[in-house]
Amino acid sequence: MDKKAMYKLTYGLFVLTAKADGKDNGCIINTAIQAASEPNQMSIAVNKANFTHDMIKQTGEFTVSVISQDAGFELFKRFGFQSGRDADKFAGFAAYETGANGIRYITEGTNAYISVKVEKTQDLGSHTMFIGTITDMEVLSQTPSVTYEYYQNNIKPRPQASAAAKEGKTVWHCRICGYEYVGAEIPEDFICPLCKHPASDFEKVVS
Amino acid sequence: MDKKAMYKLTYGLFVLTAKADGKDNGCIINTAIQAASEPNQMSIAVNKANFTHDMIKQTGEFTVSVISQDAGFELFKRFGFQSGRDADKFAGFAAYETGANGIRYITEGTNAYISVKVEKTQDLGSHTMFIGTITDMEVLSQTPSVTYEYYQNNIKPRPQASAAAKEGKTVWHCRICGYEYVGAEIPEDFICPLCKHPASDFEKVVS
Repeated sequence: MDKKAMYKLTYGLFVLTAKADGKDNGCIINTAIQAASEPNQMSIAVNKANFTHDMIKQTGEFTVSVISQDAGFELFKRFGFQSGRDADKFAGFAAYETGANGIRYITEGTNAYISVKVEKTQDLGSHTMFIGTITDMEVLSQTPSVTYEYYQNNIKPRPQASAAAKEGKTVWHCRICGYEYVGAEIPEDFICPLCKHPASDFEKVVS
Repeated sequence: MDKKAMYKLTYGLFVLTAKADGKDNGCIINTAIQAASEPNQMSIAVNKANFTHDMIKQTGEFTVSVISQDAGFELFKRFGFQSGRDADKFAGFAAYETGANGIRYITEGTNAYISVKVEKTQDLGSHTMFIGTITDMEVLSQTPSVTYEYYQNNIKPRPQASAAAKEGKTVWHCRICGYEYVGAEIPEDFICPLCKHPASDFEKVVS
């Protein structure tokens, strides 16, 4: 089994937003698809570690904003690299409007939003799959959607040749956010302090 | 509600294969994702009209071959534009091997395969979602995966300016395969005779 086969799957990227107990929050996901056409349904798989996950479980409502190629790295940092448990992700952020379901959607660096009412839930261990019917959706721009590959090649800052790598030390780069771990081997249970992705998302940099 | 918002979702394309009662079969899908990481699980949503759907429901096993940018239109025609109920889709086709689960995977125009044992099933109306654990997977090449957009722009033959369009008639093109319907309005229940997609996948050509 070569786990790298999983990297061949193609994904878009999305800001997943929810509202619960008066708090607006969101996170970045890559797993939104149209799951059925009659009736029209969307499914998303969300890591249970995300605060947004708990809010959707509580309220049964979410909105997906589709990220487009004009999005900046700031959008990913804001919604992907901090937790809504500690921070107000909308603080100092004006690029949103509020949809018919009362949940905010993102209006810059996005090309559409889709609002969903959850009908079915599947517990998959690390993630929950939420499947629901679409209550509202609009196109916001004609800029093409980002793929995960586009994000890696064009939006995420290129890792710098670090001081540690120059000294001949072995460095591991987080494929998601570029965080750098220095050491011959990365511990299996290591979690990226920046974006919270696991050790399996790190790749060794040959120095 | 603008249904075109659904077109902003990003997909890869895959040959989904199964084996039942001694018969090998496959179809084209765009809905394969990693649904969870612990344990590692894949989900697919499959139209119930596909014979492959019934085979997976019966056996609980499937393989996804990830289509890459070197795939030809022939691969899509073979697995996407005919039904395994009427045809042997593997007839005269040698670009496959048989995986550990006994199911064939495609070895040309693909860059990986992932074999799955179904653990959970969700009935979503037009489609069934199958979720399962990965029993085997390998990388087959380093050619990039196709996106649905790449298929539309680079693999699907360009529609020709048809005789009907030249005569000033209104023409509708199937976005999936390029089939042409002539008429002022396309019936809501129209099904593409070539690729079996519904009227909602047709777009009007302004002549």
